[in-house]
Amino acid sequence: MSGSRFGDNVEMTRPLETHDSIRAVQWQGDHLRLLDQRRLPDEEVWIDCTDAAQVMLAIRDLAVRGAPAIGIAAAWGVAMAAKQGAPLDTTLSMLRAARPTAVNLMWALDRMKKRIAAGAVADGLVHEAQAIQDEDLLANRRMGEFGASLLGAHSGVLTHCNTGSLATSGYGTALGVIRAGVAAGRIARVYAGETRPWQQGARLTMWELMRDGIPAQLIADSAAAHLMKSGAVQWVIVGADRIAANGDTANKIGTYQLAIVARYHGVKFMVVAPSSTVDMATGTGEEIEIELRDPNELLHTAGKRTVVEGAQAWNPVFDVTPAELIDAIVTERGVIERPGSIAMQAMFGW
Amino acid sequence: MSGSRFGDNVEMTRPLETHDSIRAVQWQGDHLRLLDQRRLPDEEVWIDCTDAAQVMLAIRDLAVRGAPAIGIAAAWGVAMAAKQGAPLDTTLSMLRAARPTAVNLMWALDRMKKRIAAGAVADGLVHEAQAIQDEDLLANRRMGEFGASLLGAHSGVLTHCNTGSLATSGYGTALGVIRAGVAAGRIARVYAGETRPWQQGARLTMWELMRDGIPAQLIADSAAAHLMKSGAVQWVIVGADRIAANGDTANKIGTYQLAIVARYHGVKFMVVAPSSTVDMATGTGEEIEIELRDPNELLHTAGKRTVVEGAQAWNPVFDVTPAELIDAIVTERGVIERPGSIAMQAMFGW
Repeated sequence: MSGSRFGDNVEMTRPLETHDSIRAVQWQGDHLRLLDQRRLPDEEVWIDCTDAAQVMLAIRDLAVRGAPAIGIAAAWGVAMAAKQGAPLDTTLSMLRAARPTAVNLMWALDRMKKRIAAGAVADGLVHEAQAIQDEDLLANRRMGEFGASLLGAHSGVLTHCNTGSLATSGYGTALGVIRAGVAAGRIARVYAGETRPWQQGARLTMWELMRDGIPAQLIADSAAAHLMKSGAVQWVIVGADRIAANGDTANKIGTYQLAIVARYHGVKFMVVAPSSTVDMATGTGEEIEIELRDPNELLHTAGKRTVVEGAQAWNPVFDVTPAELIDAIVTERGVIERPGSIAMQAMFGW
Repeated sequence: MSGSRFGDNVEMTRPLETHDSIRAVQWQGDHLRLLDQRRLPDEEVWIDCTDAAQVMLAIRDLAVRGAPAIGIAAAWGVAMAAKQGAPLDTTLSMLRAARPTAVNLMWALDRMKKRIAAGAVADGLVHEAQAIQDEDLLANRRMGEFGASLLGAHSGVLTHCNTGSLATSGYGTALGVIRAGVAAGRIARVYAGETRPWQQGARLTMWELMRDGIPAQLIADSAAAHLMKSGAVQWVIVGADRIAANGDTANKIGTYQLAIVARYHGVKFMVVAPSSTVDMATGTGEEIEIELRDPNELLHTAGKRTVVEGAQAWNPVFDVTPAELIDAIVTERGVIERPGSIAMQAMFGW
């Protein structure tokens, strides 16, 4: 892998009115270029992945993160392997093991696998990866419209983690709704939770919103209830890593806590994710595997050890929000209000 | 001010069985020695404050923090000013302005002021400061017993911020209950929330618990609800910066959020604070001034800028937990279960 500066890339500049200028996953015809999210906001460095193993490492080590972006990157990894004549079965299993919780990764790889089974070779697989990426962008724009239509005038919104252009093919899921809501003049205030331990909110969402001209305020994750009590927030808008058949939703650690305090304050709670995040084979949230990551992520902060040597930490990076705490699930297929098994089955069942 | 290494100080070593070896505020006969809490856990550095202005700066700049410890340090500042023949009115108002939310600061300074009005000079004021410090330690031990008696066998407890020896004359308030509960064999698991942005839980509580032989696990502030759902926690135990006449409690940002998620999971919520924290002149939590600190505390992490330049942040460092979410308020006078105005008036009224 090699790095290059952000400024090199002309595709980053798009009209500002749509508040949508960032594309972090870019196919270069023979390799995959990824904006290294570990280096933001200090440096805008691109990683050139020239084989599928490099894509797997970029996913595992969080250079690319966000459930949809992971799926898209993995699809390009398969396409690249096909172009290079690498063994595709090995490539699929290697990529599948990179991260356990996000179902989009499995979904994208299954889609590539089906095309392989149908006899597709390099060109066909490049076409399929491009389709996955393009469809994601269209889905995000649609979800933006659906979600923004739920917002009242002058809404204050709070989001968690990063669900924007960095986490998707572009535009974003929850941040896509915020982009659309700002463009439509419905959003008066945007707050972003810091999202410890990896600080996706502080490092990525604030960077993305600043770059796209959306004024926002950062809060500590623990300040959300105090903020809600002040009346400044009408909606919490978050993404998802996996949505079960009953609407239970796995997302970044802290989401469940936000949903509880939102309900306590009468603040509405919206989950925004492409339908590829819905896993009808998972009955409820209880069945979702929660990724426990290295305690060192919590024992260190911003690259520095902040906790006494020998200390232990518990570092689950996702949690499950029960459907009963969710007011709306927004996918590109439409909106499910007060989600439950019947409505989910009607929209996503076979 | 000058620094000296922790190891110099022989009083730090006490029997480990009481899990109580740390004294962070130490009168040296002519000046006040403070363990610099900004440098923990990296370095154990002592600050020698040789006049009241240095004490004020140590309070304002968080070298000493924790509501009781702030009050004790300020009392010593007044005593030192008296010994040095400095003007006491100016000293009192300077110290009073160092931090706005903690009522113990005002309480300790009022106590010193009364002694001054009664004609006390240097020796009398040294005696009064020593009494404030000694009474705090005794109060903490008493609260430890009261609080621990509320815990069932094999309890899991979650605490927030630092409420231990570092925050008091020694032993601690909420951490005092945890010390007593561990000594009594009632506590099976201790979890500490990180407490962003200043990371008192990660930096101070984990250091203090390790040093006193109490195994604990650090969690992200946002992981509390997920932890509670697992059934690992039966009590949240926190300190307080100010308790209003109806039991509403101001404490470190994030406390209110913990109280909401605790109630949602049927986890009990205990506030532990000396009676000097109770402010019967404040009717409800609505009247408590909440300190907003520099947004840079949130925009930087562990001394490093983590958020894009130009970004804004909202940094309230306290919040108010309504009495209805509190199962027990523990002071050295006793326990109030399900606190409200009548019980508060009976215990703390004139």
